[in-house]
Parts: sequence; structure tokens; C-alpha cells
Amino acid sequence: MNDLLERPRKVYVSRKIEFNAAHRLFNPDLPDDENVAIYGKCSNKHGHGHNYLLEITLSGIVDRTTGFLFDLKELKTILEEEIINRFDHKHLNHDVAELQKCVPTTEVLCVLVWDILEERLGNILNRELALHEVKIYETGKNSVCYLGE
Amino acid sequence: MNDLLERPRKVYVSRKIEFNAAHRLFNPDLPDDENVAIYGKCSNKHGHGHNYLLEITLSGIVDRTTGFLFDLKELKTILEEEIINRFDHKHLNHDVAELQKCVPTTEVLCVLVWDILEERLGNILNRELALHEVKIYETGKNSVCYLGE
Amino acid sequence: MNDLLERPRKVYVSRKIEFNAAHRLFNPDLPDDENVAIYGKCSNKHGHGHNYLLEITLSGIVDRTTGFLFDLKELKTILEEEIINRFDHKHLNHDVAELQKCVPTTEVLCVLVWDILEERLGNILNRELALHEVKIYETGKNSVCYLGE
Amino acid sequence: MNDLLERPRKVYVSRKIEFNAAHRLFNPDLPDDENVAIYGKCSNKHGHGHNYLLEITLSGIVDRTTGFLFDLKELKTILEEEIINRFDHKHLNHDVAELQKCVPTTEVLCVLVWDILEERLGNILNRELALHEVKIYETGKNSVCYLGE
Amino acid sequence: MNDLLERPRKVYVSRKIEFNAAHRLFNPDLPDDENVAIYGKCSNKHGHGHNYLLEITLSGIVDRTTGFLFDLKELKTILEEEIINRFDHKHLNHDVAELQKCVPTTEVLCVLVWDILEERLGNILNRELALHEVKIYETGKNSVCYLGE
Amino acid sequence: MNDLLERPRKVYVSRKIEFNAAHRLFNPDLPDDENVAIYGKCSNKHGHGHNYLLEITLSGIVDRTTGFLFDLKELKTILEEEIINRFDHKHLNHDVAELQKCVPTTEVLCVLVWDILEERLGNILNRELALHEVKIYETGKNSVCYLGE
Repeated sequence: MNDLLERPRKVYVSRKIEFNAAHRLFNPDLPDDENVAIYGKCSNKHGHGHNYLLEITLSGIVDRTTGFLFDLKELKTILEEEIINRFDHKHLNHDVAELQKCVPTTEVLCVLVWDILEERLGNILNRELALHEVKIYETGKNSVCYLGE
Repeated sequence: MNDLLERPRKVYVSRKIEFNAAHRLFNPDLPDDENVAIYGKCSNKHGHGHNYLLEITLSGIVDRTTGFLFDLKELKTILEEEIINRFDHKHLNHDVAELQKCVPTTEVLCVLVWDILEERLGNILNRELALHEVKIYETGKNSVCYLGE
Repeated sequence: MNDLLERPRKVYVSRKIEFNAAHRLFNPDLPDDENVAIYGKCSNKHGHGHNYLLEITLSGIVDRTTGFLFDLKELKTILEEEIINRFDHKHLNHDVAELQKCVPTTEVLCVLVWDILEERLGNILNRELALHEVKIYETGKNSVCYLGE
Repeated sequence: MNDLLERPRKVYVSRKIEFNAAHRLFNPDLPDDENVAIYGKCSNKHGHGHNYLLEITLSGIVDRTTGFLFDLKELKTILEEEIINRFDHKHLNHDVAELQKCVPTTEVLCVLVWDILEERLGNILNRELALHEVKIYETGKNSVCYLGE
Repeated sequence: MNDLLERPRKVYVSRKIEFNAAHRLFNPDLPDDENVAIYGKCSNKHGHGHNYLLEITLSGIVDRTTGFLFDLKELKTILEEEIINRFDHKHLNHDVAELQKCVPTTEVLCVLVWDILEERLGNILNRELALHEVKIYETGKNSVCYLGE
Repeated sequence: MNDLLERPRKVYVSRKIEFNAAHRLFNPDLPDDENVAIYGKCSNKHGHGHNYLLEITLSGIVDRTTGFLFDLKELKTILEEEIINRFDHKHLNHDVAELQKCVPTTEVLCVLVWDILEERLGNILNRELALHEVKIYETGKNSVCYLGE
């Protein structure tokens, strides 16, 4: 079946999930006034928060039998376990072990999500399936993406 | 000028603003297990956060000279002073005086914003200009509105 | 606690869910050409489909202890059982018993969702909690709402 | 057919259309400095513009045979003829006859669209079909609605 | 005219269109239980449906006389004829000849739209105008893109 | 601090701003009928307008101390001074010096914004910080992007 897939076709498949978290932008290695100069009101003591919208993109060759790049049910399970459980309804500065040595900017969060997913996907990734991009919208106006470079 | 306005026309004018805040749903009058039963992961100790989207609606008669219900530059100033300064980049449980005796649910936040704006608009409100609605989207999925009832 | 709630406050709380379904607009009591005249390409034999976005609004008095109008975890369970299970990934004309005698327009779907929820919520509804509105967006451009009138 | 419609059901059906237009907020009966004080940069000489998003809502009883409140193909034709032809890709101050005596604010535009549609729908409107609301989003942040009051 | 275009400038121009279709994910070469294991509720017998949002991106050098990459009126006609006529208000499994040997996943649909447009644009494409990307959002959460690789 | 940043990480940071402007697509070097053939109703004499949504993307290495690619407060100032002041609430054909020899299509606008920002960012740009992309959405359906090629 599926003669459109007779020759290999490389596609990019994206899935969005949302998590709601608090964070504070503050570098304890720097004096308070420098933190205010760099982070402004983002450095307020008790933190503030966001509805983070995360978009994961996988790339690779469409499977000839299923017509899928990857089983989205499996991806959903992975994202629940690795992302939602770790970040959703958490305070990023207090509750996430991997961020204890980091200022939890959106840039850093993107890099962390990439590292987490790359390790988790590990043996699933192969010549025909790659983690392509992690994109996080902190607000409707600001976003960051990381491609593993 | 403006013969479309020869007879009084009642309109509803809405303006959206966004603020980013942390909150924790937790009632200190209740035991911990009851808080967990009621609020689930929303009761996590250090809180989480949202991009709150607030929509204010005024109603009243369009001014025949300006074609406006209300000067949006003035409304913008009021919203900056009363809402953004009070809530943006804050932790609602720790940083907002008016919420010290409240569980900062979206319902409570709606009621508070109404009370704040009603007091501030005070002498501006008259027979031809009313505060009509305060609506808050906590996420893209959940919203609450309050009409002063 | 919660002195903002010392006097009763009536709020409207909305929650959105999405379901993906196929439907065909076709009235078997009418001749084919009349169906085409009324429904155009919406009457195509095998049907077409939509990402239906459903918004449920409850109204009532905010609870003084919890700061909630209604437990959203409970609402989520109800919507899963009554709406998602019944409509999601279904063909409305073939798979939904309640629509067997209906042309499954968005108007009809709105009325049906209201009737289902009103029956299910039944003994939960009281003087302080009402089903206020069922709104369905068939596409980003078209929507219908029903308030039980 | 359609036993859900055995008793009359009142619904609200909304349709969105977009038009792109230029306008200038300027009242020629007032001196220039007063125009600047009232309208700020919206009074710039050559005008500016918007993607206006217009939402029309009709209300009434669902038809038992069709399951529709109103034939959306007919509504589409009406909106093309009355709204798109009149406003789309126009400069509201120069090109729209009905606005020659008006400052083309969104409030005024809402009232004008209502008047145009009420006249056009004229003999279609009856006890079971009413024009309910005209809503215009000037930007994603600002909107006005008019209900004929 | 247009001295900004004195040197060649390569841009990417995107246009979105929507079509509403039903589909069923089911591979007749596989036993039923395997279909359920792979496609879950997406394999329901009569199908379900989506508001598919399609975004086409062309790339190339801006024309010095017109300031356009490509005449969007012509692109609109092509998309009406090739995409809307073929997919809108159809059941992809029953009504689309090109999909008869395929499981109509979003991946496969992306590849098919690319092949259709590449053939149709054929002699229009040249060194200065290329089909760059076909992106399809199946829902607000899931999307696939194909770049002809 | 920030051991996630021990090795250099290249990210892409995007920020959206909106400006509202009028424009007319008309090339004075061509006869009127040719302008109508090319630009259709976009060539109407007094112009029309849009809510232009502009997305700027910078790329480069995340700073180890701040966790930022670039200070968004500084970017905001630059965008206010260079983009908002120049384009917002203006008629692109009459009020923007740089467009006097251009047909102000979205393609041309993208190229111009790139040139303006590249010059302004000038000495800020270095081996670790680049201007990556300028994207403009003219409407929700049409967009153009330019990457400096």
C-alpha cells in the first residue's frame, strides 16, 4: 500500500503541549543590584509565572506501513513522563533538580528539554528518526528554539 | 457631525491586557490533605504560574463629538497603574496585599479586579458609562467573568 | 478567610474542550436535490469533518472556602465521560445514538450537549450553580451558542 | 425528523469575516490641537489601517426541517455585498459614503454595520429571527460590540 | 523604482487555507487488531474529521517591478482548483483518488499536496521561484511539514 | 553557575511586535490599468490598511552568566525606536522616507526592516549574535520572511 511512500519522504512532525510554571530570573553568583539591572522585575523575590507552550519537532522518513513518522501515542506518553511531570505546576527554581545550577530563562529551559528528550528517546533515534527542534513560547510574544547545535 | 450618533447608541468596549504571575491554591484554614483533595497539584508548595489575559469591558453611550465611548489612552493609564503594577511579575500569594486573606483562584481575582476598577473609576462612572465586565483567561482553556452581581 | 467573598459574588466559569468528528448534513425526509439546495457540499455522501471546539459555561456563587465556583477536576471528568466519549473521533451521523433522528448541524449539536449536561449535572445544579451556556465553534469562523431557552 | 427540535430552541449563530481598511480619527469640526489631544497618533494626516475582524450574531429558533437557524450561504452573500464590497480595501474616511459625517471609530463602525444589516435583512427578520449583535475587533486587543440598544 | 530591490533578495512567502474533511486511519493490508493497536480510535469505522489548516510557502527572488515574489491572486486560483476542490468537504478515504492506496495520515497528506502543487506549478517554477514547504496543521496541537526531501 | 551552558548552545530567540499602518500597492512607473491588473483592489487610490505583526529572530550562543541570548529590554527599545516610531499609525506610501521609491508590499517591508535592524544592531552583532530572520504577517493568512539572503 501507500505508493506515495514508494520513495523515502522526509517530514517534520510537531506536537504542542502546555505546562504552567513559576520562575524567578536571579543569579545568586551576582549582587542584587546587578540582578535587578539584568532581569528587572523578572527578578522579583517570590517569582512570577507563565503558561509555557512547548513544541517538539521530530524529523525523519515516513513509515511505509503506518503512514506515520512516529507513534504520537508513544510521544504523548514520553512528554507526560518527562515534561509534564517535571515542569507542570512547579516553581522552576525550587522544584526542578536539573535547574538548580541555572537561571531558568526560556533559553536554558529549551536546552534542558532538548537534553532530557535526547536522552529519553536515545535508542529510538536512528538514521530515520531524529529530534529536530525544541521551541518554547514563554508568552504569545516571546519564544526560543533550540536545534541541538 | 456624526449623524449616526444623533440618537444615543449604547456600545460595549473591551480591552485586553496580559500579566504574568505566580500563585498557589492553598487555604491555610484547612489541613494539608484537604488542600490536596481540593486543589491537587495547584497546591504545590512554591506555587506555579500563568500568563493571565484580562479583558475589561465598559458600556455606555458613544460620545457624539469624539465617536468614542471612553478615551482608551486614559483606560490604558488606569490599567497600568491599577492592574499591571499590582499583579504583573508578582507572586499573588506573597506580593498582593488585597489577596492576603484569599485563595487566589481566578474567580477571586476577577472579583478583586472588579472592586479595584470600580473604586478607581469611581467618579468617572455615570449614567452613560458603566463598568460592564471583568473577564480573566487563566489559560487558553479556562476563563472566569464577573459582572458585578 | 477570603473577605472578598463576604458577600455573595456571581461569576461565570468557562472551560473549553475539543473533539474531532465527521458529519454529513442530509435530511433523509427530503429528496436529494432539496438536500443539495439546502446543504450544498455539506451533503456530500461520505461526510466531512471538523475540529469542534466546545465551551461550557457554568454560573453561580463563588464558594467562600475554596474560592471556586465548581471543582474543575469534577467538570473535566464529566466532560470526558459525556462529551469526549460520545463525540470524539466519531462520525456523528453513524455513531451517536441521540443524533439518529437529527440533521447534525452545529445548532442541533449545541442543543444536544445542553440536554446531556443538564441531565448529568442534575442534582449538582441548585440555586447557586447553573448551567449557563453551551457554545460550539465548528470552525474558526462559525459558532453557535445555546442558553437553554 | 429531529426530535431534539420538537420544542422551540433559541440559539445564537455567529459568523466572522475580515476586511482590511485604512482610517483616520479626525473631527474636522475641532481645531487641530484638540484632534491631537483626543486622537493622538490616530489623527496622523494620511491615516493608518487595520485588519478589522467583524462578528455578526443572529438569534432565533432553530428550523425543524433544516436544523439551521439561517442559511449561512445566504448570510455569506449578504455580508459580501453589504460589508466586504463597502469596506474591504477602502479608506473609511474617503471611500465610504455613510461615514462622511462621522469620525470612523470602531464604535461608529459597529453602529453603521448594525444599521446596514438591519435594513438589508429587513423583511427576513421576524419573530423567530433577529439581528442580535455586531462585534468588531480593531486589533487583537480592542473590540466593540453593539446590540441595537 | 524600488531601489531596495536593486540587488536580488530571496524571500519566503506563505499563504494559509483551510479545508474541512473526514478521514479514517486504517490499513486494509493489516488485520483489524493491528489497526486498532496502531491507530486507536483514529481507526473507528466511519471515520472522524478535522479542520485542516494548510500553509504553502514559496521561495525566490522579489520581482523588481511588482515588489511581489508571486501573484497571490494566481496562487489563490491554483489552491482553489487543486486543493479546495479536491479535499474540502470530502471524506479523504472515499473521495480522493490519489489517496486510494494510502492511509490518509497528515504525513501522507503533506506529501500528496507537495506532489500535486509541484506538478501544477511545473513550468512556473524556475531558478527564481521554488515550492519551499507544505505544512498541515491537523489540529491546533499537531502539524506536519514537508520540504520535498 | 549554569552547567547546562558549559558547552556553547546556539539558540534562536524571537519577539513579536505589532504596528498598524495603511498602504497602497501602486507602481507610478506603470500605467493605471496595469496597476489594476497587478494589484487589483490593493491599488485603490486612498489605500487600505493592516495590523502588521512583525517577528524578529536573533540567533547565537546563550550567555553563561545571564542565561540570555540578548537583553530583551534592549531589543524592545531598539524595536520601539526603529520600527514602531517609523511605521506605526503611518501611511507607508506617504510617511516612510525609505519606501518612497518602493511599492510597499510585505516582501519589500520585510527587506526594509532587515536592512534597518542590521544597520542599527551593527556593532552589537558579532560571531555569537546574528540577526536571523524578519517575518511579517500582513494578515492571519499571508506572511513573508527574509533571512538576509
